[in-house]
Amino acid sequence: MTPRFGSVLTAIGTPFLADGSIDEQGVGRLAQWLVANGSDGLVVTGSTGESGTLVDGERRRLWQLVREAVDCPVLAGATTNDTAHSLRLIKDAEEVGADGILAVTPYYNRPPQAGLVAHFSAIAEATALPVMLYDIPARTGRRIELPTFVTLMERHENIVAIKDASGDVARAAKLIETLRGRAEIYCGDDSLLLAFLSLGAVGVVSVASHWAGFAFGALVSAALSGDLERARRINRNLLASYEFESSELYPNPIPTKAMMGVLGVCSDYTRSPLIDPPPELREQARKLYAELEHNLAAEGIGMAHA
Amino acid sequence: MTPRFGSVLTAIGTPFLADGSIDEQGVGRLAQWLVANGSDGLVVTGSTGESGTLVDGERRRLWQLVREAVDCPVLAGATTNDTAHSLRLIKDAEEVGADGILAVTPYYNRPPQAGLVAHFSAIAEATALPVMLYDIPARTGRRIELPTFVTLMERHENIVAIKDASGDVARAAKLIETLRGRAEIYCGDDSLLLAFLSLGAVGVVSVASHWAGFAFGALVSAALSGDLERARRINRNLLASYEFESSELYPNPIPTKAMMGVLGVCSDYTRSPLIDPPPELREQARKLYAELEHNLAAEGIGMAHA
Amino acid sequence: MTPRFGSVLTAIGTPFLADGSIDEQGVGRLAQWLVANGSDGLVVTGSTGESGTLVDGERRRLWQLVREAVDCPVLAGATTNDTAHSLRLIKDAEEVGADGILAVTPYYNRPPQAGLVAHFSAIAEATALPVMLYDIPARTGRRIELPTFVTLMERHENIVAIKDASGDVARAAKLIETLRGRAEIYCGDDSLLLAFLSLGAVGVVSVASHWAGFAFGALVSAALSGDLERARRINRNLLASYEFESSELYPNPIPTKAMMGVLGVCSDYTRSPLIDPPPELREQARKLYAELEHNLAAEGIGMAHA
Amino acid sequence: MTPRFGSVLTAIGTPFLADGSIDEQGVGRLAQWLVANGSDGLVVTGSTGESGTLVDGERRRLWQLVREAVDCPVLAGATTNDTAHSLRLIKDAEEVGADGILAVTPYYNRPPQAGLVAHFSAIAEATALPVMLYDIPARTGRRIELPTFVTLMERHENIVAIKDASGDVARAAKLIETLRGRAEIYCGDDSLLLAFLSLGAVGVVSVASHWAGFAFGALVSAALSGDLERARRINRNLLASYEFESSELYPNPIPTKAMMGVLGVCSDYTRSPLIDPPPELREQARKLYAELEHNLAAEGIGMAHA
Repeated sequence: MTPRFGSVLTAIGTPFLADGSIDEQGVGRLAQWLVANGSDGLVVTGSTGESGTLVDGERRRLWQLVREAVDCPVLAGATTNDTAHSLRLIKDAEEVGADGILAVTPYYNRPPQAGLVAHFSAIAEATALPVMLYDIPARTGRRIELPTFVTLMERHENIVAIKDASGDVARAAKLIETLRGRAEIYCGDDSLLLAFLSLGAVGVVSVASHWAGFAFGALVSAALSGDLERARRINRNLLASYEFESSELYPNPIPTKAMMGVLGVCSDYTRSPLIDPPPELREQARKLYAELEHNLAAEGIGMAHA
Repeated sequence: MTPRFGSVLTAIGTPFLADGSIDEQGVGRLAQWLVANGSDGLVVTGSTGESGTLVDGERRRLWQLVREAVDCPVLAGATTNDTAHSLRLIKDAEEVGADGILAVTPYYNRPPQAGLVAHFSAIAEATALPVMLYDIPARTGRRIELPTFVTLMERHENIVAIKDASGDVARAAKLIETLRGRAEIYCGDDSLLLAFLSLGAVGVVSVASHWAGFAFGALVSAALSGDLERARRINRNLLASYEFESSELYPNPIPTKAMMGVLGVCSDYTRSPLIDPPPELREQARKLYAELEHNLAAEGIGMAHA
Repeated sequence: MTPRFGSVLTAIGTPFLADGSIDEQGVGRLAQWLVANGSDGLVVTGSTGESGTLVDGERRRLWQLVREAVDCPVLAGATTNDTAHSLRLIKDAEEVGADGILAVTPYYNRPPQAGLVAHFSAIAEATALPVMLYDIPARTGRRIELPTFVTLMERHENIVAIKDASGDVARAAKLIETLRGRAEIYCGDDSLLLAFLSLGAVGVVSVASHWAGFAFGALVSAALSGDLERARRINRNLLASYEFESSELYPNPIPTKAMMGVLGVCSDYTRSPLIDPPPELREQARKLYAELEHNLAAEGIGMAHA
Repeated sequence: MTPRFGSVLTAIGTPFLADGSIDEQGVGRLAQWLVANGSDGLVVTGSTGESGTLVDGERRRLWQLVREAVDCPVLAGATTNDTAHSLRLIKDAEEVGADGILAVTPYYNRPPQAGLVAHFSAIAEATALPVMLYDIPARTGRRIELPTFVTLMERHENIVAIKDASGDVARAAKLIETLRGRAEIYCGDDSLLLAFLSLGAVGVVSVASHWAGFAFGALVSAALSGDLERARRINRNLLASYEFESSELYPNPIPTKAMMGVLGVCSDYTRSPLIDPPPELREQARKLYAELEHNLAAEGIGMAHA
């Protein structure tokens, strides 16, 4: 059974111009390029999309641009750590035709679990769109506990999926089984995708799929069809991408922007407090791409090409 | 030598009305009440002030209201995880007469240390106001490393203070010594204040000072004058307040709002995703206050009174 | 290709008599019972075997008893945090016919990685037996870093396997790929087995295989033959066993001993500082077993029976 | 009031000869040297004494040698992760005239809190000597929870002290207040001593006191007499020693052994799995000592001299 939003979702980066404004043409180009190169769906204005430094109008515009550029599921990262603000953003997402909402744990203000229930409930009630909950404690400072997920799923039919970036694989197994038939679980860490798939996750919200979308698709297919040998060979080839995509020195999405720049898809500017990729990171990107392309060829898997 | 902003700074909560709007009278009343009850200065729209759910106009209005209500150092929590946005907020803070800027680590987007340098540098360069850096990794997902502090202090004379809520006491000792004569370190965890004072911190940015401001002042005086016995007796009496002020079930500032409501200073509404204090928390607040008042009397220390 | 020591290894518990001495008959009975019920091999005097409270003569005697009782690979937990002591124990293990050595990270004294290289090298050089390295930082306070594994594998042909109980699934993927064709990786956390198998682990050193050995075998077979659906159904049934087998209140091996007692295989005494299973834990064991037996029947999988 | 065992206790290292045997003359020389240079008491065969690689007879011999060499409180690190074994060692400690027992949390086997109560109770009941409990979760993998301390203190009069190396300063404050008048708390991390003193700890079980015993004594005196300025100046001078005494590359006690070798007190051999100090570490030791000597002179504080 095909998952509602597809198997390989890409958390698309946001291209900027040299003056810091959104590169509208680049957005469309990047979206089309991703879909042409293995992405089944796109998550727009997620953390990889530098949501923290976008204003509301820009978020809406980005959803619209992507919506117009591609004909695949588009999820809008339309929530913040402010419930009321989130409800306004969701209306925007609906209006421009998003297919779903990615709802992240409120960050920084660290609400109690009862507050998470109230927050996500308000979001689910404010929209007819399907909602994907997003648990990423390393960024938010707060975990969504398993009973909180269960309570929300019992109450809101349109909460249909979870992006689990908790890094806790044993918990993922429990989550997947507890919510079996009720919610689709997506892996939120590229490096844990194969493990998550074995446990019943339906796919990934990926970063490295910016350049290796076909490989992620092939990995999912191989794993779900039971060809673990092939899945592992693909995963092995992606290990270097997992290390590249985020590090202390160059956290996500800086390396992804470097790669997009190197591949000529769009420019690689970021907004402060992130930093633009330095030459050495671009050089790493070039090298990584070449090696990956060479290795994947042996599996009959192509790379994203401009 | 008296620290620039005073010893006992309170991260003032933001009172709301039943309809969710800011309780403007409550703001003034609370600010005056805090200053009358032991606070040397106020940090407005910090995390305790529910900064995450305030819009820009509200922030500005809050700084203004507090500025008008009291005649003490007022620091504006005027930065977010967006450098450009922060620069606009800082202008507002200047215009309404704030005495300083509390600049928190960008949360959620987890910039590299080089990005932190760029972010805080932009802030320092955008204002003539003194700046207090705020390190609170449990909320932000990113630590400010010691070399980053040093670099910033070397470059920007108006970065004058640090609120250290890292919970890392051994690091605090190094920080204080490394920046001796250059920056004033404030403790950002009430429960660690006495330890920080012994290491050379100049004071606290406190939450429990909402109800125990005189006790914090007395604790600082006792510690700095070398009367550790007295400092410890006061600290002992505050242990219950430290446990009360934030918990998994009722994280900060929910308990503080319960206390302010119980004391009749202002209402105790919060904005979602936080939750309003339930009756049991109010009952805890009442009991805590009564016990603390009784115990502090033995030290000749009064409590905040309406 | 069948892994050298088999797929389902059980870290066998050590039965004691009421007077605290080793229940020699119980040891043989338990070993035979495990092998009759799904274990391919046995790890004797590991942490589940309460190695911390065994004296040298007892260790040797346990290896001997198990060696005599069963005809399957027997690995001796023959190392401590003392290199010289470990070398003596290894001689004992050789003399009584162990098939391999489980070599745990030195605990408590927290050696540097260079010390780990020296320690494990001394062990590998002291024996012709194959050695399985055992990384379990939650118990030892020290992790074996990936480069340390690589160095050891380069130097010592008889280091042939790793029991990875680090809990770090992303690292496991790297470890497995880095050492592909050189070392067999066993999962050291029952709850992570399915994830590890998907990444290329060859099996498990299990605790819950004391009562669910056939289920672990079926899980491994299903996963390795590509029937992930079945593997997941089995794993789902084992979730309750994962929670049961170790908790803050009753850490491993207390619950396993309760289960063995309830099943009539051997007594359930422990040595202090562990505690004997209280009646409530035995009751939990009974209930867990009954439910698991019922659920596994639907998969055509039997339980261990006395 | 002077604490029972003194303020500055040194966890004495164990000198070995080139052949790996105990350097008996070195032991006596080192013990005398420590007492002559600022130590009020000695903890023998603690983790700094490489307890993990000592056999029982060696432990007993070490307690005896130190007992004979010096006339100050001698605490014997006479417990392991095996209750029965610990009881035998305690008898040895009593027989050779130890003044107290340092009882560490059972490591590696991770007992439940109920098991800790049973273990430490058995120890307390087995001896008339005063007992110091030792909480060091980074080495043992298990924390002693506050209620466990309280239960033990209620039941056993001869449990009189705690060495807190948990690194949790907020907990230390609660521990000290909860057990005020009942137990003396020693800081188990040199770098946290000043903070602990401010909270009411009575002293330190130190490592760096091997070369800076007078400084630790002066730090304690200054803090307890209320001269925090001086305490801080001394602490500042010790920061480099805190960094030196344990690191990932050279964990404790390797740097201490290097220093003792450089100062000519005893040889610097370790037992595997620790490693002998390389020349670069000796060079660091020399440099550190020279700088510290120079800086402490300004405070009128001498260094340990051979």
